[in-house]
Amino acid sequence: MALIVHKYGGTSMGSVERIRNVAQRVAKWHQAGHQLVVVPSAMSGETNRLIALATQLQPQPDPRELDMIASTGEQVSVGLLAMALKAIGVEAVSYAGWQVPVRTDDAHTKARIESIDDARVRADLDAGRVVIVAGFQGVGTNGDITTLGRGGSDTSAVAIAAALKAEECLIYTDVDGVYTTDPRIVPEARRLPLITFEEMLEMASLGSKVLQIRSVEFAGKYRVKTRVLSSLTPPDMPLEVEMASGTLITFEESQAMEKAVISGIAFARDEAKITVMHVPDLPGVAYQILGPVADANIDVDMIIQNQSVDGSTDFSFTVPRADYQKALEVLNLKVRGKVKAGDIVGDPKIAKVSVVGIGMRSHVGIASRMFRTLSEEGINIQMISTSEIKISVVIEDKYLELAVRALHKAFDLEQQG
Amino acid sequence: MALIVHKYGGTSMGSVERIRNVAQRVAKWHQAGHQLVVVPSAMSGETNRLIALATQLQPQPDPRELDMIASTGEQVSVGLLAMALKAIGVEAVSYAGWQVPVRTDDAHTKARIESIDDARVRADLDAGRVVIVAGFQGVGTNGDITTLGRGGSDTSAVAIAAALKAEECLIYTDVDGVYTTDPRIVPEARRLPLITFEEMLEMASLGSKVLQIRSVEFAGKYRVKTRVLSSLTPPDMPLEVEMASGTLITFEESQAMEKAVISGIAFARDEAKITVMHVPDLPGVAYQILGPVADANIDVDMIIQNQSVDGSTDFSFTVPRADYQKALEVLNLKVRGKVKAGDIVGDPKIAKVSVVGIGMRSHVGIASRMFRTLSEEGINIQMISTSEIKISVVIEDKYLELAVRALHKAFDLEQQG
Repeated sequence: MALIVHKYGGTSMGSVERIRNVAQRVAKWHQAGHQLVVVPSAMSGETNRLIALATQLQPQPDPRELDMIASTGEQVSVGLLAMALKAIGVEAVSYAGWQVPVRTDDAHTKARIESIDDARVRADLDAGRVVIVAGFQGVGTNGDITTLGRGGSDTSAVAIAAALKAEECLIYTDVDGVYTTDPRIVPEARRLPLITFEEMLEMASLGSKVLQIRSVEFAGKYRVKTRVLSSLTPPDMPLEVEMASGTLITFEESQAMEKAVISGIAFARDEAKITVMHVPDLPGVAYQILGPVADANIDVDMIIQNQSVDGSTDFSFTVPRADYQKALEVLNLKVRGKVKAGDIVGDPKIAKVSVVGIGMRSHVGIASRMFRTLSEEGINIQMISTSEIKISVVIEDKYLELAVRALHKAFDLEQQG
Repeated sequence: MALIVHKYGGTSMGSVERIRNVAQRVAKWHQAGHQLVVVPSAMSGETNRLIALATQLQPQPDPRELDMIASTGEQVSVGLLAMALKAIGVEAVSYAGWQVPVRTDDAHTKARIESIDDARVRADLDAGRVVIVAGFQGVGTNGDITTLGRGGSDTSAVAIAAALKAEECLIYTDVDGVYTTDPRIVPEARRLPLITFEEMLEMASLGSKVLQIRSVEFAGKYRVKTRVLSSLTPPDMPLEVEMASGTLITFEESQAMEKAVISGIAFARDEAKITVMHVPDLPGVAYQILGPVADANIDVDMIIQNQSVDGSTDFSFTVPRADYQKALEVLNLKVRGKVKAGDIVGDPKIAKVSVVGIGMRSHVGIASRMFRTLSEEGINIQMISTSEIKISVVIEDKYLELAVRALHKAFDLEQQG
């Protein structure tokens, strides 16, 4: 008998029929002797409906009031799922975030979980009940309802699994796991049965939308064994089969050792690059450039500064494409004169492609194979950035699909790992 | 400057446009210098939508889980109204029932308010904010969400007005006040500018659906000056005009003294009558008959027992029409043999018509005028029951409209009171 957390996304909860399916799946796990905590999202479309109502009344909705409204979608889901379970004879009880309570900071619409009280949930589990906790929400320091931001139910589930020291956190979604890359671009993309936490973090932050990045961080921090798997399989499929499906995010490198050198190809096409030319090579210049950008609430992703020549260097970085014009304005107004830089140039039509893999640590030649592959396809590399387990390059936007397909093939990712 | 509670029904909150109207009306009161607490219902149709989802998953929904779900309708309303107010520059803050908190007992789906903490609301009011509290809901002794049952937002509003010692509680609805009778039956029916609490209680319990009966009881218990008025008037109508509209429920008989003897004609057509014949005239027989009926959760309204003749009497009472067959079964199975009664007869096709008026206390001849009027119309009276301020008769269902019209005319109710 183990304590297991299930999380179901909005599509899985999207209709009465689908909620019945979820209940059947949960009942199967419960009847196999496991203790179950279930974290459902709002029924698909519900959160958007509520936000649309809000923005009609107040174009920039008050964050506290928006949380009051948006949190109701999950509250409805937990009640409905409890009923669906009771209807098939499984004892169940639902809780809103504030009832557990799931305590957060007071940053409405993007709150962070600070602590979770496990007493009430544990008492119910010990009494044989399935406990259903509303995802995406919590309660702030002054008793106001908070929400964790889009995709926050993943984070809720992992955080609850951590608080309860659950054996495993199963994230049921409408894909059946994490792939070597997006199957819409590379039909040969293959599901990874296993991925390390570090790889998952890189894949998530680089644009693989399977899991919300904060939930991966949480999983890493508290070492929560997390599995991404499909909610579209028959709810009564044998438990052993289900437990072997999906992608397990592991913390044990020994498991990962047997895997391929590269786990996957991640990509993002919503960035823009900016270069500040001929920056004097003096201490404090990087801060003088990026300080005003950060003050304008613009996130900076890759940052590149090369060896200086004749006392000056070119300073490049990427920003979200939506903030490109704003970033240029900030730089021209507040930075250029101050740091005595040359021209400020940029390009919003770029894409970032990354190869990710824990095996990279112990294998030489990954970078050269990547660069050779792109070169053979005639794709120019504009920027390069590396970490211990990934290599990212910035290329011209229009070559994205070509690059992903070529790299997927070059690293033999279509082969069983 | 006074503390005023506003309550808006589901129709008044039924669309973004209508919520904007409510916000305008509230803003007008706030700008006139009043402290405002607003209690809105769920947007019309929302509670039914949620209950329909619930019953699809569990035909007899678990009451605790149903409350979890049903309470979200009002939670959405309070957030939206706060946004609508902020959008026009009025500081506002919303609260769910548990946040105030509005404490209730644990009778899910029909909870009773036990206490309301006024500290948080009062602090907001003193800071100049409009406070919006979700109607219909509270929190039970163990922290579960409870609801007060259909129409419970009226009760919430009156209870909050009582807790805050508000100057007045204004119930905005889609009718413009309490009428001498239903205008759909008697076109000459007239709005009553004033009604006493006792009269309102009789009118509400006898089928005038303007206010939920429990809210009237609350108003009476805590002497909350309550006014029923229309939410369909222009939100910017002058405050003096608005304050003179609707129907004020008063506790001062001096005001009522100037009124007509009879305030209105109430009626109900959802009852059935049952008579247990030849009941031995012994102590405890009434309990032996009605005990099992109450145990079967059947409400009993009128109860009539006449003087016995030759040691036996006929015992009659009315029950909700929906419970008629069930009541007959209970009586035949559990009562008849035990009390050695004769036949049990009944009729589901009855209606109850009542004349109500505080002036009745000091005027003789009201009953005789009522009976004469019905007699002149050829309507047979099957049962009679009286209280200090009302006379009710049971008649054949098909004569209901005729009886109401004739009585309305006989007591000159179309004249200005």
